[in-house]
Amino acid sequence: MASKKISMAVIKRLPRYHRYLNYLLELGIKRVSSKELSGRMGITASQIRQDLNCFGGFGQQGYGYNVESLYNEIGNILGINKTFYCIIIGAGNMGQALSNYENFVKRGFKVIGIFDVNPEVIGKKLKNFEVMNLDLLEEFILHNPVDIAMLCVPYRETATVADRVARLGVKGLWNFSPMDLKIPYDVIVENVHLSDSLMVLGYKLNDKFERE
Amino acid sequence: MASKKISMAVIKRLPRYHRYLNYLLELGIKRVSSKELSGRMGITASQIRQDLNCFGGFGQQGYGYNVESLYNEIGNILGINKTFYCIIIGAGNMGQALSNYENFVKRGFKVIGIFDVNPEVIGKKLKNFEVMNLDLLEEFILHNPVDIAMLCVPYRETATVADRVARLGVKGLWNFSPMDLKIPYDVIVENVHLSDSLMVLGYKLNDKFERE
Repeated sequence: MASKKISMAVIKRLPRYHRYLNYLLELGIKRVSSKELSGRMGITASQIRQDLNCFGGFGQQGYGYNVESLYNEIGNILGINKTFYCIIIGAGNMGQALSNYENFVKRGFKVIGIFDVNPEVIGKKLKNFEVMNLDLLEEFILHNPVDIAMLCVPYRETATVADRVARLGVKGLWNFSPMDLKIPYDVIVENVHLSDSLMVLGYKLNDKFERE
Repeated sequence: MASKKISMAVIKRLPRYHRYLNYLLELGIKRVSSKELSGRMGITASQIRQDLNCFGGFGQQGYGYNVESLYNEIGNILGINKTFYCIIIGAGNMGQALSNYENFVKRGFKVIGIFDVNPEVIGKKLKNFEVMNLDLLEEFILHNPVDIAMLCVPYRETATVADRVARLGVKGLWNFSPMDLKIPYDVIVENVHLSDSLMVLGYKLNDKFERE
């Protein structure tokens, strides 16, 4: 499985293919051509064929792709048949939103704890958890498998918190603070900068509609 | 200002430059070289020079960039000296999180209303607002300037809601549902797919640490 090295550009498109194929599966559609996928996804058919060729030729001339096997194979490559255990640091609005995002569970990301430093929030009952005191972090990680820490803490505390979880052996950081994280450990960081996306939208609006 | 057409690839990096320059300003740093920026941002110095050259040569040999003027100019290009009025549709966790995200206000995105269809949520007092009945959407948009609708509604309702706000003349959609939106109107859509980012993180973890 996936013995060939797949480029990161392709990897970044795979979750999107996965979503579309899931949608087709739910509609009961059994096969799909690169042209049909292209129409739905706004990616050229040749790009799609090239992407999907990276991990074995599922497509057959005149038949297209088998939706279910392509869906499963992309899921395998993305590792969603595995479970990633996640904790959330920071139980503000964003942390609470992430703590019961059902889509994550479906994709194998299971949140097992949420932490904060604010006495007014610690002990608060969320849908699935009670917010824990961040002082308990070391003990929690010692007794539970934690693959990913989702960081929803204020900007100025992000680096310190990231350092602390990385030292405890957490290998994946999903960072929602506005600053890109760089860590001197063997850790993988994905930054989510919501404001950046919003600013690009603002730029496009200005550019297209030339508001006064 | 910015008479030359700037490529979307550069535009997408501008919010990041803007964040870093803001950080330098807060530290009281007055000038910065492309090399220093490169070290902080993880973009090559030559890429930085190329990007910043797109909108006029601010850099001076042996001096570098004036942090404040570069910050202001990038802000101008991104249009953050303007105010974009935003509404949120869907007052679940994510909608509530977005409704008091202070970073947005700083960047000129002002949320002026939040809507839902759930009787248990309508009327709920959030930090800045009371959740309104979605039935009032038409009236609200008639009497208030709305540039952007932030869509935090369930997957299956996204297309209908997007269509409805687009018909009412809202020109920008910021979509948090897992499906990419395509709309037959003259509307700009930015999709935010949190699960996609998380799945890429999962892939990288598998790839690097080869978990069993």
